[in-house]
Amino acid sequence: MTQTLRLGIAGLGTVGASVLRMVARRAEALEAATGRTIAVTAVSARDRSRDRGVDLSGLHWFDDPVELARSSEIDVFVELVGGSDGAAKQAVEAALGAGKHVVTANKALLAHHGAALARTAEEHGVALAYEASVAGGIPVIKAIREGLSGNAISRVYGILNGTCNYILSRMEAEGLTFEACLKDAQALGYAEADPTFDVEGFDTAHKLAILTSLAFGVEIDAEGVSVEGISAIQPLDLTMADELGYRIKLLGVAQQTAAGIEQRVHPTMVPKASAIAQVMGVTNAVTVDADAVGELTLIGPGAGGAATASAVVADIADVALGLARPTFGQPVPRLASPRRVEMQRHEGGYYIRLTVHDRTGVAAGVATRMAEANISIESIVQRRSAKAASSDPQGLSGQPVPLVLITYAATEGNVREALAAIDRDGLLAEAPQLIRIERE
Amino acid sequence: MTQTLRLGIAGLGTVGASVLRMVARRAEALEAATGRTIAVTAVSARDRSRDRGVDLSGLHWFDDPVELARSSEIDVFVELVGGSDGAAKQAVEAALGAGKHVVTANKALLAHHGAALARTAEEHGVALAYEASVAGGIPVIKAIREGLSGNAISRVYGILNGTCNYILSRMEAEGLTFEACLKDAQALGYAEADPTFDVEGFDTAHKLAILTSLAFGVEIDAEGVSVEGISAIQPLDLTMADELGYRIKLLGVAQQTAAGIEQRVHPTMVPKASAIAQVMGVTNAVTVDADAVGELTLIGPGAGGAATASAVVADIADVALGLARPTFGQPVPRLASPRRVEMQRHEGGYYIRLTVHDRTGVAAGVATRMAEANISIESIVQRRSAKAASSDPQGLSGQPVPLVLITYAATEGNVREALAAIDRDGLLAEAPQLIRIERE
Repeated sequence: MTQTLRLGIAGLGTVGASVLRMVARRAEALEAATGRTIAVTAVSARDRSRDRGVDLSGLHWFDDPVELARSSEIDVFVELVGGSDGAAKQAVEAALGAGKHVVTANKALLAHHGAALARTAEEHGVALAYEASVAGGIPVIKAIREGLSGNAISRVYGILNGTCNYILSRMEAEGLTFEACLKDAQALGYAEADPTFDVEGFDTAHKLAILTSLAFGVEIDAEGVSVEGISAIQPLDLTMADELGYRIKLLGVAQQTAAGIEQRVHPTMVPKASAIAQVMGVTNAVTVDADAVGELTLIGPGAGGAATASAVVADIADVALGLARPTFGQPVPRLASPRRVEMQRHEGGYYIRLTVHDRTGVAAGVATRMAEANISIESIVQRRSAKAASSDPQGLSGQPVPLVLITYAATEGNVREALAAIDRDGLLAEAPQLIRIERE
Repeated sequence: MTQTLRLGIAGLGTVGASVLRMVARRAEALEAATGRTIAVTAVSARDRSRDRGVDLSGLHWFDDPVELARSSEIDVFVELVGGSDGAAKQAVEAALGAGKHVVTANKALLAHHGAALARTAEEHGVALAYEASVAGGIPVIKAIREGLSGNAISRVYGILNGTCNYILSRMEAEGLTFEACLKDAQALGYAEADPTFDVEGFDTAHKLAILTSLAFGVEIDAEGVSVEGISAIQPLDLTMADELGYRIKLLGVAQQTAAGIEQRVHPTMVPKASAIAQVMGVTNAVTVDADAVGELTLIGPGAGGAATASAVVADIADVALGLARPTFGQPVPRLASPRRVEMQRHEGGYYIRLTVHDRTGVAAGVATRMAEANISIESIVQRRSAKAASSDPQGLSGQPVPLVLITYAATEGNVREALAAIDRDGLLAEAPQLIRIERE
C-alpha cells in the first residue's frame, strides 16, 4: 500500500469548501482510480471563525498560506487564494521550491508568472496543475495538452467568461441594455460589485493567454492580448446581428497567422448555426481547430464552486497517479517566444454600425471611402424607424439613422482608415460601432 | 536519455497509414511532450504489395499480426485490424501476455472482451488504451476517466455514429427518404456496402457499452444494450419533429436509474435548442450529466483516418509518459456487475405516430386507450393532406391519415400496452411509429 497523498488547501471560499467535500465524498472512487488514498490534512484561510458548512476538525490550521505551502505535513499544495501576486504567488513559489506539487485555479497568477513557475516546477520534478484556471469544469487543458498531442493547432477560441455570456444572452433574449443586465447579474451573484475585470475582457484575456501557450507551444504572453469588452454593445447591435444571421459573443481568440500569433478578446459575431452560438447564459465553450481532428468543441460550466472543484480534483487525481507532465505540454526551455501580431494586421469580416445624418448621398459617401480603403461590402442595411418615416417622409430633417455594413475579409488597419475618412467627411453623428466576425 | 518507444502497427488501412504519417510528422513535438523518442519499427498487414502512400522501408514487415504482437522489436502494439474476434483478439492477447502496451481503435473487441483484456493488461502492468474506439477524434475517454474523476455520473449520451447522423441530417434538410440518403452515403464512402452494422445501431451500441463501463464503474455489458436503428424513420417523422420543436438523432444513452443502468440505442427526439441537436452530418457528440459539473458536451469528428489517428497517437503519448491507468478507470476486480434494466421499464416522453382510418371517433378511441394505460398526452396533431380535404371534405372515405401524439413521461411498458389495445380496436391502418424523447 502506497502512502496517503496529503493535501493542503489555501483558500476556503466556495471552491475550497467544494474541494474539501468532494475529496471526502469521492474518497473511495479516487482511491480506486489512483491506487492511493487522498486526504486533506491542512488548510489555510483568512478567518478561522467563519462557518463554511464544512467540518474542519482534525485538519491542521495555518494562518499563513506560505507556511502551509512549506509544511512537511502536505504533499500537494492546493492554491485557491487568487490574485496574480502577493500571498498566492509567494505560497506557490514556496511549495514548488519545497518540492511539493501545486494545483491551482488561479488564472491571473498563471497568465502573469506561468512560465517562471513552470520552470521552477520542472526543476523540482513536481507538477504545476491548473485545469481549473480556464473554463471551470470543462477539461480543456487536458483535451488540448493530452488529447490533441498528435495535432498541430491553428486556432483556439472560446466563450471563457460566464458573466459576459450571461449579459449578452439576456440582452439578446429580452432586448435589454447592457447596464440593466449587468445589474441583474450582480444581484444574482454572477458579476462582482466592480465588474470591470469581467465585462472589459481581462478575465477572458488571462484564460486565453494560458490556452495560447498550450496550443502553440509558446511562453505565456498575457500582455500581448488585444482586449475589448462588452460594455459598448447596444441592443440595436444584437437586433442587427439576429437579422444578419449572427449572435454576439465575447470571444477569446488565439490564431496562428503567417505574421505570428494573434491573441484577441472582443465582442464577436458568430454564425447562428455554429455550436458556439448555442451557448447561452453562464456556460463556457472552447473550440479548437487542429490539422488532424478538424474542429473540436467542448461546452460546459465555466464557474461555480462544484464545477471548479471538479477540475481541481481531476488535477489532484493526476498528481496521485505520479505523473508530472511538462506544465505547458513541453519543458519551458523548449517553449518559443510568441511573435505578436498587432491588431491592425488582423484580417476578417467586420460588422460596422454607423450613425449617419439622414441626408442624400450619405450612403454613397460611405461606400466610396470603403472602396478607397480596399474594403468590399457583403451587405448593407439602412433603415429608418417607422416613426421617423411617418413624421418626415422625404428624409429632409437629416436626423441620425443607423447604417450597418458587413464587410468581406478586410484588415483592421484598412477598416480603421476608412472610418477615419468617413468621420473627417462629417458623415457621422456618433462614434462608429465595430464588431469583428469570426467564421467557423 | 531514455530509450525510443518502439511501435508495431497491425493494420495499414486509412487509420494505420495516418498513424504512420502522424508519428513521423509530430516526432519532435511528441518527444518534447513525453521526453521520449517515438518511432514505428514494425508493421503487419494483409497485402505487402499494396501502395498505401507511406514509406515502409526500414520497417520490419510481419505477415502475421500475432507474430508482430509477440515480437521483441516493439514496446507498444497498435491494433488497427478490427473485428471482435479472430486475428485482432489473438494479437491483443499475445501482446498483453508478452508485457507489451496495447493501443487499439477496436470498439467491437472492447465491447465483447473488454473486461477480460483489461484484467490481462492490469496483471502484466501494461496499458490497454482505446481512445480511438469511441467517437473518433473526440478525447471522450480521457474526459470521462480523468477529467471527471471528481464526479458521480448519472447519464451519458451521444451521437456516436457518423453514418446515421449524416443520413438523418440529409433526410431533415432535403425531405428525402432513408433509402435515398443511404445510397448517397454509400456513394460518398460514409456507409458500407452492407450498412446494417451502422444503420441498425450496433456500432453505436458497442461504443455506448464502453462509455457505460467508464462512466458507471461497471463491467462492459454489450449484450445488455437495447438496440433500434434508423431504417424505419420516415420523412414525415422529421417534418413532425420540426413542427413540434425537436430534431431526430440516433442516440446511445446510458442512464443510472433506481432500478439499475439503462443502456439503449434508438432514434431520439431532442429539443432543437440543445447543443446535441446542432450536430449535423458525420460529426459526433457526447454529453455527460455529472453531479459536480452538471452538463458537459464534446463535439467533434467521429471517424476518418486523421481524426482516428489523432486519438491513437494521444494514447501512444500517454504510454510514452509511462503511465498505466486502470483501463476502465478502476481495476477490473473493483468493477461492479451492471444491473440491467429492461426497456419495458424505461420512463420518458414518447412521440407516437399512428396511421388511423379517417373516421369519426378515432381520436377519442385512441385517447381513451392512452388514458386507460395511465399515459398523459402533452400534444396531439391530426392533419389531413390538402388533397384529401378537397376530394373528401366531410371525411367520409375513411382514408388513412396520420395522428401524432406527444406524451408526458410514461413507461415503455404502458405505451406498448396502449398501442396493442388501439391495434386490437382496429383503429390502425399501419403499424405505429414510436420515437423516444430525451430531455436535457
